[in-house]
Amino acid sequence: MGSARLKHYGWGREGEGMTDAEQAFVLGRYRQKFGRDSFNTIAVPKLGDLKLPEPRITPPASLAPICSTDTYDRAAHTYGKSYPDYVRAMLGDYDAAPDVVAYPRNEAEIAAVMDWAEGAGAALTPFGGGSSVCGGVECRVDGSRYKAAVALDMRNLGRVVEVDKTSRAALIEGGAYGPALEAQLKPHGMTLRHFPQSFEYSTLGGWIATRSGGHFVSLYTHIDDFVESVRVVTPRGVLETRRLPGSGAGPSPDRMFIGSEGILGVISQAWMRLQAQPRFRAGASVRFPDLFSAARAVRAVAQAGLYPSNCRILDPQEAFNTGAANGSVAIMVLAFESGDHPVDAWMARALECCADHGGATEKANAAEAHREGAAGLWRNAFIRMPYAREFLTPAALINDTFETSITWDRFESFHDKVKSATERAIETATGIKGEVTCRFTHVYPDGPAPYFSFHALGRHGALLEQWQAIKDAASDALIEAGGTITHHHAVGRDHRKWYDRQRPELFAAALRAAKRELDPLAMLNPGVLIDP
Amino acid sequence: MGSARLKHYGWGREGEGMTDAEQAFVLGRYRQKFGRDSFNTIAVPKLGDLKLPEPRITPPASLAPICSTDTYDRAAHTYGKSYPDYVRAMLGDYDAAPDVVAYPRNEAEIAAVMDWAEGAGAALTPFGGGSSVCGGVECRVDGSRYKAAVALDMRNLGRVVEVDKTSRAALIEGGAYGPALEAQLKPHGMTLRHFPQSFEYSTLGGWIATRSGGHFVSLYTHIDDFVESVRVVTPRGVLETRRLPGSGAGPSPDRMFIGSEGILGVISQAWMRLQAQPRFRAGASVRFPDLFSAARAVRAVAQAGLYPSNCRILDPQEAFNTGAANGSVAIMVLAFESGDHPVDAWMARALECCADHGGATEKANAAEAHREGAAGLWRNAFIRMPYAREFLTPAALINDTFETSITWDRFESFHDKVKSATERAIETATGIKGEVTCRFTHVYPDGPAPYFSFHALGRHGALLEQWQAIKDAASDALIEAGGTITHHHAVGRDHRKWYDRQRPELFAAALRAAKRELDPLAMLNPGVLIDP
Repeated sequence: MGSARLKHYGWGREGEGMTDAEQAFVLGRYRQKFGRDSFNTIAVPKLGDLKLPEPRITPPASLAPICSTDTYDRAAHTYGKSYPDYVRAMLGDYDAAPDVVAYPRNEAEIAAVMDWAEGAGAALTPFGGGSSVCGGVECRVDGSRYKAAVALDMRNLGRVVEVDKTSRAALIEGGAYGPALEAQLKPHGMTLRHFPQSFEYSTLGGWIATRSGGHFVSLYTHIDDFVESVRVVTPRGVLETRRLPGSGAGPSPDRMFIGSEGILGVISQAWMRLQAQPRFRAGASVRFPDLFSAARAVRAVAQAGLYPSNCRILDPQEAFNTGAANGSVAIMVLAFESGDHPVDAWMARALECCADHGGATEKANAAEAHREGAAGLWRNAFIRMPYAREFLTPAALINDTFETSITWDRFESFHDKVKSATERAIETATGIKGEVTCRFTHVYPDGPAPYFSFHALGRHGALLEQWQAIKDAASDALIEAGGTITHHHAVGRDHRKWYDRQRPELFAAALRAAKRELDPLAMLNPGVLIDP
Repeated sequence: MGSARLKHYGWGREGEGMTDAEQAFVLGRYRQKFGRDSFNTIAVPKLGDLKLPEPRITPPASLAPICSTDTYDRAAHTYGKSYPDYVRAMLGDYDAAPDVVAYPRNEAEIAAVMDWAEGAGAALTPFGGGSSVCGGVECRVDGSRYKAAVALDMRNLGRVVEVDKTSRAALIEGGAYGPALEAQLKPHGMTLRHFPQSFEYSTLGGWIATRSGGHFVSLYTHIDDFVESVRVVTPRGVLETRRLPGSGAGPSPDRMFIGSEGILGVISQAWMRLQAQPRFRAGASVRFPDLFSAARAVRAVAQAGLYPSNCRILDPQEAFNTGAANGSVAIMVLAFESGDHPVDAWMARALECCADHGGATEKANAAEAHREGAAGLWRNAFIRMPYAREFLTPAALINDTFETSITWDRFESFHDKVKSATERAIETATGIKGEVTCRFTHVYPDGPAPYFSFHALGRHGALLEQWQAIKDAASDALIEAGGTITHHHAVGRDHRKWYDRQRPELFAAALRAAKRELDPLAMLNPGVLIDP
């Protein structure tokens, strides 16, 4: 981790990245895939070479100490981590840089920045770790409606304020990054156990605002169910929901803010439900002849009421790409964990479900299985993968993912339609056959959350158009076939076109009306979710 | 069940009720409690004796076949089943009777009734089974704002439209009563397994609109998590959410309608997640020296990640009242069930948790334990209890319940404050010492849902005032001590005063704005949740 500052281009902090060996492994896979010895690689402009537009507004003296107009701060808050974000940053396009980046230290300062920005006619975009892969933190605003753009970085609200061990809950500030949050819980023997892929570079407030998907494959798939109550700073004041284990008093107020993606307010604090540190584990990798037989086993496990912490599957090609298998088999990584009791009975029954569907167990009931074998290889690839894009993009390699969910009755045809539409689009857009792979990230009794990765060899000068053509085809296919445009990556700006087809129009009207009440001048994160 | 019509006064259908032996048992407990040989009992007016106001509007010819202005229909839709409902009905007060009762047979007719009522300046109150215990279905409207009141009874939309066994889900109409819904699922080997106490006389749409609490003590406590998608008829059109196992696309549209209590629209259909019929069960009754030690055992089980289907506790007095114990011990009824695997490992660990907190097991691992012993006695009392109020009220016996939830760290002091405030209020209001007992209906890792019952000997002529004084004191105490005004009985009209203190004002503003969008003339269920 370290305390270096976050990169303005790339994943994580300055000085971090894949090792030479990891880079060689990843590039080797692509050389093999596209039959090339090398790739046409361009240079990414250095920070000192960037030309940013002049800031259009200046913070008042009272806010100056917590605001910055430095090139670094503005550049580091221009983009999230989506594929088009990388391309535009690589091309030195920083037109959408925020004019000012504010770093409030408490709720009063959030409110003060909000009041100032509203008065100045500026848009304000809440910024957690900046790991959005759907254009959720980009400040690109309509210059006729907004006079400027302010990014509100929550990193200084990073405390675990209170821990209630009896109820297993903690009051945590919205700007707390994953590792810092867990480090503060650890002395209490507790853990939030929410580990999205972006864990190191994302925040509690960001997770709640985007309905982040985490560690648990079942039951507690999204952050949603861990939220006991929230505090939200809106342009019309602060609101706080009551801390309750469960309630039936009207539509859930929490659920209006969970997934609100910064358009209704800034999540300053939340009471979160915690877990005990796991003391018992069982893990196994299971091989299946193909994705669909693995999926039938997942369905059996998901409908058995066993609630595994992991039950993820990779199709044969994805297992190969991550180094977890040789390309001839689909892999399931299965795990149970508990802070309370041995989980052998759970694991035994899950393995029976797998055997019923042709699964062959590689290794079972080993407490460390989640760190070893195929599971360990995948786990490592999962954590390191985000570092790849910063060197793949300059090599014109288009590597992206999209995720969805679908009911079991439609899964197989859904998978085939989405995969083939994406494959066709890659070949049409780039002229070269690409690759589309699938895994499951989360599972429900009524359906899986399939996660697709695609790989294409693009052409410098056309990368954005090529990516967009592929993204359009994939998104059209999945919306037409009944999926959701996002299971846990959020809507942001990139998914708007399909979200607009997915959500009922009358719900959008209701959400717009709610926003007008809390944010009458529509200053918060314009472009995201709805047009006010 | 039978096909007799629903009573206009009392629980269930005409001809049903407690047996003489059951009545004798219940009244015996009250004679003992209050040291009386008999109670001053008045007669409830018969249907033919009721004087209802003349209907203020007449449905158009096109709707006449599905509308009624008969005294029976209007009287049977005047009230829900709350204590003040019984008193007012017993006193022959039917001033709030709806002018017209409509029985639409499909969505088009719902919309037609809505359009007509809106045009006529009438309020419209959706009506499921009419089992509301919080004034959720009462049409009492402000005569200056609304020209009349229409009740929309959903009973003719009672079909299970489609069953998807692969995904374990079914599309069910909003007016389906519990038994009919289960009967239609049974041939498919599936069950919704949502069994609120009102199961026989409540509907799917009502459950969703009120966030009904059901069979499962943990995990699937409310109907909320069984909802895969909804269709809602609003005054501005029909909306349908996408059928998805999980999604992260913006704030959940379903969650806006779950708990909306009829103020945003009428739930015409929903895709619901189903369960397999349980094939494996384990059950036990466990005795504890007192409520708090039982509660500590519940906490241990709830935090162990075992997810029992039942883990309910009764304090010593409540166990005595239901005939489950002799008054010297608290009782836990513990059960696991599965359609997939034996649950012995789960039960064994849960019983260890109980033993750790001083629990003595009465009977363990008996598949039929849920029908036998203390569990069986309680189960029977639970199902039959609603029939008691119709003969207790005319005897001036005030018998009511209220339910809430609270985090574990506050539970013990919360319990004592609420219980003593209610006891004091009973004595002040009636001059006679009453009784307040407590059980848990649902449990969460972060806290229980305590359910209080109270018993008072009131006085004819003052019952409403006496009840209100007790209700006020209890509600004030639980809101002040941090609870929710309702865990699964909904807000309705009776809980408004405390709901208004509980929900954030800015959330109410947002909800009001959403309502204005869907129901611009505020015709839907006025008085419930918010004032438009």
